[in-house]
Amino acid sequence: MPHKDTGKNKKKKLPSLKGKPYEVRGRIWLDGKEGTFLGHGRVLLMERIKKFGSITKAAKSMDMSYRHAWRLIDSMNKQSPHPFVMTTTGGKKGGGAIVTGHGERAIDLFWKFNQEFLEFLEIKTNMITFEEEGR
Amino acid sequence: MPHKDTGKNKKKKLPSLKGKPYEVRGRIWLDGKEGTFLGHGRVLLMERIKKFGSITKAAKSMDMSYRHAWRLIDSMNKQSPHPFVMTTTGGKKGGGAIVTGHGERAIDLFWKFNQEFLEFLEIKTNMITFEEEGR
Repeated sequence: MPHKDTGKNKKKKLPSLKGKPYEVRGRIWLDGKEGTFLGHGRVLLMERIKKFGSITKAAKSMDMSYRHAWRLIDSMNKQSPHPFVMTTTGGKKGGGAIVTGHGERAIDLFWKFNQEFLEFLEIKTNMITFEEEGR
Repeated sequence: MPHKDTGKNKKKKLPSLKGKPYEVRGRIWLDGKEGTFLGHGRVLLMERIKKFGSITKAAKSMDMSYRHAWRLIDSMNKQSPHPFVMTTTGGKKGGGAIVTGHGERAIDLFWKFNQEFLEFLEIKTNMITFEEEGR
């Protein structure tokens, strides 16, 4: 979710500029018909669901409420022709959650775009010309 | 300011996807040593200062407090080797504000990067492949 920081991110963190005076930074996400479809937080959430096999545990590991996690998943599932996350009910452990192949491909696509975006940002950072003199 | 929406932007606005199912969106900004240096809101503020010749009027036109506008200007001026906005005191109208040549070039650079970013986003939008079947 590009617009919502978790409490953890609210602390002011000074940027590491790698010796440069300025750095171009940014974030990208995908919109669908209902608004945000896929962003950094949603992709991380799916990765945690893959890891833990549970929405509850995935949400907890991100300091996110179950309710919020469920809303993000519901939003992705509703906007995709195929669900990204599916839940299983019953069984000894009271059911779990899995990321579907469609979800996996969404994760891959997001990180691919993000990687290309990071390269774009680096190129732009190297083009910053505020230090020019005499103009 | 990438992280801070004004009250006006908080209303949920459904995206116009131009007939596509998904769209890659995003925002960019420049960080300096103290954190955010130049972003959409700061650039708009400078453009309004150019238009109105006054920080008060510029801030008001953006539904922004004078205090907040002043902080943004101070942050830019402190992080740049040359100030972007200068204030004049006295005179019949009680002083005003101008955007310096350095500020003008910062505005131009931001919009140039932003335009290139919009082109990047369009290319990525055209690469989205969620609709693929049979995989």
